[in-house]
Formats: sequence, C-alpha cells, structure tokens
Amino acid sequence: MLDGLTLSIDAMGGDDAPDIVIKGIEYFLSHDGEGRRARFLLHGDAEKLAPLLEAAPRTRERSEVFHTEHTISMDDKPSQALRKGKGSSMWNAIASVKGGQAGIAISAGNTGALMAMSKLQLRAKRGVQRPAIAASWPNLSGGMTVVLDVGANVDCDAAQLTEFAVLGEAYFRAIYGKDCPVVGLLNVGTEEGKGNTVTKAAHERMSQSQLGIEYKGFVEGSDISAGTVDVVVTGGFTGNIALKTAEGTAKLISTFFSQALNDNLWSKFTTALNSVALRKLKKKMDPRRANGGVFLGLNGIVVKSHGGTDAIGYATALNIAMGLAESDFQVAIDARLDALHDEDDNIGFFA
Amino acid sequence: MLDGLTLSIDAMGGDDAPDIVIKGIEYFLSHDGEGRRARFLLHGDAEKLAPLLEAAPRTRERSEVFHTEHTISMDDKPSQALRKGKGSSMWNAIASVKGGQAGIAISAGNTGALMAMSKLQLRAKRGVQRPAIAASWPNLSGGMTVVLDVGANVDCDAAQLTEFAVLGEAYFRAIYGKDCPVVGLLNVGTEEGKGNTVTKAAHERMSQSQLGIEYKGFVEGSDISAGTVDVVVTGGFTGNIALKTAEGTAKLISTFFSQALNDNLWSKFTTALNSVALRKLKKKMDPRRANGGVFLGLNGIVVKSHGGTDAIGYATALNIAMGLAESDFQVAIDARLDALHDEDDNIGFFA
Repeated sequence: MLDGLTLSIDAMGGDDAPDIVIKGIEYFLSHDGEGRRARFLLHGDAEKLAPLLEAAPRTRERSEVFHTEHTISMDDKPSQALRKGKGSSMWNAIASVKGGQAGIAISAGNTGALMAMSKLQLRAKRGVQRPAIAASWPNLSGGMTVVLDVGANVDCDAAQLTEFAVLGEAYFRAIYGKDCPVVGLLNVGTEEGKGNTVTKAAHERMSQSQLGIEYKGFVEGSDISAGTVDVVVTGGFTGNIALKTAEGTAKLISTFFSQALNDNLWSKFTTALNSVALRKLKKKMDPRRANGGVFLGLNGIVVKSHGGTDAIGYATALNIAMGLAESDFQVAIDARLDALHDEDDNIGFFA
Repeated sequence: MLDGLTLSIDAMGGDDAPDIVIKGIEYFLSHDGEGRRARFLLHGDAEKLAPLLEAAPRTRERSEVFHTEHTISMDDKPSQALRKGKGSSMWNAIASVKGGQAGIAISAGNTGALMAMSKLQLRAKRGVQRPAIAASWPNLSGGMTVVLDVGANVDCDAAQLTEFAVLGEAYFRAIYGKDCPVVGLLNVGTEEGKGNTVTKAAHERMSQSQLGIEYKGFVEGSDISAGTVDVVVTGGFTGNIALKTAEGTAKLISTFFSQALNDNLWSKFTTALNSVALRKLKKKMDPRRANGGVFLGLNGIVVKSHGGTDAIGYATALNIAMGLAESDFQVAIDARLDALHDEDDNIGFFA
C-alpha cells in the first residue's frame, strides 16, 4: 500500500543517472534505511532501469517503475523545461506527490527546472510568497547548521525572510529532532542597527514575534561553520554565495593540508603511518554527508540531490527525505505559518 | 624629509596597541621593509610610546611622535566617534594624510569609526559615490584574490559595483604587480540572466565598457578560493558575509584536521614526525598573511589592520600600505574613474 512513506524518484535526473539513483536506493536500504517502511515510485526509462534493478534486490522489492522516455537535461533552462517537460521523469516524480501517491519527490536533476516544475504543480503553501531551498552545513559543535534560502529567491523582502525563519525552524526540528532550534538572521555584524534595509526590517519583525521561535538575532558569516545557531536565515542571493564560498574554502584548506602531508618522501611516509586518523577525518569531512537541498513552503516536499553525487551521497538525500516523511513537518509548518500571518495582520507589520 | 613614502600611524588603535603597533613597525623594518624608504608619523600617547620606542631602535630612527591622549575605543559607534573623536590618535593619523604630510594612514582600531572619519576628512574621490573596503584572500593557485566591497556599503547599486571594479582592478595591479588583473562579478551562477536586479544591471554595464578592464563576467562563491579571477566585485553586504563565511570555514576545516592529527597517542606521534611539513603549512595558512583591508575611492589611502592582530600581522598591513605608497595607484585610478564616468555619460547608462 502506498502512503506518506512512499518516495517518488526522478530516476533519470543527475549526471550518472539512473545508475547512481538505483545504487543510492540500494545503499540506503542496506544502511540508514534498513528496516524502515520506505517504498519507491521510480519514474524513468523502464528498459534502462530493468538491468539495474536486477542487481539491486532490496530496491526491486520495494519499487514500482513508471515508464517514461522523456528526460530533462542538466542544461535546460527552467522556462524550456516547463514548456517541453510535461511527461518527463522529473515532472512525473513531482506529479506523484501532487496526486497523493507519494509523500516526497527526490531528484538529482537540474535545480532550476525542478523548482519551476515544483512551483507549477505543487504551488506555494497558503500564505507563503515563494518557496525556499534549505541546505545543511557541518559545524564546529559536531552538528549541522541549516541555511536558507540558498538560491531560490535572489531578491527577497523582509516578509519572505520571516517566512524562511518559520520554515527553517520547523525543518530543523523535523530532521535533527531538537525541540527548540535557535534561529539567527545573517548580517554584516551582530549589533543592533547593522545591516541593509531588508535585513533590518526582518530583524524588527522577528523580534516582535510571539510565535515561540527561539530567535537569537543577527549572526555573521563565520557563525555558519561555528554552529552558533541551528538555522541561519538569509536571502537566496547571499545564501547561495555564502554556501558556495564555504564549499570553496573547505576545498582550499583541504588541498593545502594534503599538499603539506605529501610534500616529500618523509612526510608521505609519516602521513601513511597516520592513515587511520586521516581516514576518519575524510569521513567526517565527506561532502556527501551534507547532500540534499530541500524545497520548503510548497504543498508537498521536494528534495534536490547534487547532480554530480554518487550512490552514497544520493542515499544521504534519501535519508533526509525519509526523515521528513516520518515527521509531522508539513502539519507543524502549516500551524506556524497561520500563526505568523495572523500576527502580521494584528500588528500590521507588512500591511 | 616627509614625502609619499611616509606612513601615518594610529599608534593607539587595536586590541594590544600601542605595543603591537611599535613591534609591528620594528618587525616590518627588519623584514619586508628593510632598506625601503619608509618613515612613520606616530600619533598617540607619547608617554606610553617612549619605552616601546626605546626597545625598537629601527622604528625610533625613522619616526616622529605626535602626542595625543585621546583615543577611540573599539566599541564606539561611528556617530559617537565623529562627535567626540577630533584630536584622537585615529583622527590625527588621517589628518596627516589630508594635510599631505603622509601618503597613507594605518589603523588597527574600530573599522566603522575609521571609515566615518576617513570619509569626513578625506572625502570620496571626484565621481566616486562611496568608498569601498578591499580585502585579500589566499587562493588555490597560490596567489591572492582581492574581494571588494567587504562591508562599507550594505546597500549598493549597479553604478557603485562598476566603480568597485575600477578601484579593485587598479588596487590589484598596484599590490600584486599584474598588468591586466581579471575581474569577476559575484553571483549565484555564471550563466547570463542569473542574479538579482543590481547584479544583472552591473553586469550589463561592465560588459559594455571599453575601458580595457579584463572583465570575465559572473563568478560564484567558490571562485574566491579557487582563484578563477584576481578581483571579485560585490556589494558590501554579500562581500562581508562571504569573507566571514570563508574565515569560519577555514577555522572549521583546520580544527577537523588538527583533531584528527591529535586523535590518539599514535596519531600524535606520527604527526610529530611530520612537524616540518605542518610548520610550512601553518605558515601558508597564517591569517596574518592576509591582514589589511584597504579603503579605496577616497582622496588618500587608509589601511585597516585587524584589531586583534599581532606584530607580524601588523607588519603585513604595513607592507600593503608601503606597496601602495610606492605605486602610482592614486594616479591610475583617477584616470580610469574619469574614463568610466565619461563612458557613463556617452552611453547614458546610469542617466
């Protein structure tokens, strides 16, 4: 029987799809997903999927294939994808959520196309102006920091930022199981009065709110990695740049380290002696651990995996999707969004 | 004799001033500054400076002390600093540039106060709407990437971003000696049509320009550390957040590495064997190497050192200041800015 714990899969989205998609599901089912009630609707080319499913018995047992030969390419612009994308594996994966056959859709395909199709089919939740993309980033306290929006909305206003706070807080609660996640607003300094017009207005609005969200006030770029707060709220322009800057810096510092550790024969030798510690480190810093951007604020949830990920990274995205499917996330945010907009009306803030 | 190679020093600005300031000058004069024609005007408390100068013979020989007891604290707001700051060591350091006694002012004090006083005393160059702060960040190709604005202007328009491109390009040329530095505009993607309103307009303006600036188009957050371009142009809100995010991530990854390398007795032992390589690495990643934000677009140059830096970091800021003093930076940007605004008038872009 299909229910909320059914995941709808765009089996053809991603650089190495459908190969990594099926291998990713199989990996998930033999690790984090073992014993969980997940089922899968696989949208894609049945002929290509058949031999892959042959080699993935756990996946085969829990999946149904819905054939389509039509796929969206990584280069298609959102507008093109909308024009010619109906009936594609991506479109159909979202349609299964819209139709209620699945709780969540997952795709490693083209982000712009996926967001455009998700908005068109699922529509924004009542009261939400535009959906956001939330991403997770590892922090110094050993946990994850959720950052949103990381790219869906390049020109955001204060009302949107306030909605992102509600969406991000509920998301963190659902995924990481913390009762009262702490929310911060990304700014150029933490003192009152700092920031651009939009950020200052959003801060004023959030400070006035009685919704019970643990709002800490302004945070700075360095707080994303420090883990000062659980949820970092910002507009899609700055959020995207912050996240990509963090990725670039992580690569830079890791490269410096591995160059140093392999600088000459002696350092290569001592580094080899230290291989266990370095293997543990590699696991800790594995970018696949942070794979999975979640579209929040739609009537239905869509999880976007990195296009270039492998089976293990895809399994991380599935784990996030399952965590959301098993939570009361959608109900919780509906209640909070209603309360937020009642409050807006009462205090006349965005009137 | 005093000339352009005279640096005006706010000897009291910074967490450990005046101690690190005098030690920083002494360090500079015995390393990068050895044999260069630098002279120093030291603004600060003569009584506190005297014993420090006793211990710093090279500095003493090349300095003149201008006494003031009045200092700006790190917590003073820019508006407070302007009201009560006249006659302070910071104010007087800038005044020496205004009066032509020195080519460049250096302070490790409060950034907001320093910018406010610099604008008030030196004024923006003809045609420049607002000055920017440029910072340098190490990149994968072993060089430095200049990012501006990193915080002076939180709400920027397209005309300002275009000016930042001119200022940043001339700055890179002066400091790193590259004939045609490559300039990129920070965005959420590199494809045409991506970005927010301001970024798209700035891109159109820069693409039309015939000024001879090597404009590469859009770059992403990851390009700052990758070193894809020499100069990354963005508004002060995003630039500040990108730079602080990069600093935070560098700290995160370095912490992960040192935890791994000191995880247990065995890894501590093998890490100790590798100490030479790790010392070299530490030098490479030394944040003091990147110390020194430069205020660009004023009638006079002001260099801001990190408030919490030590003598070696302060010497880096002095080295940047001397590099600028020895270059034809101010003349070069005057010519470029004039050409830019002639072009604006001709094409009527910002009319």
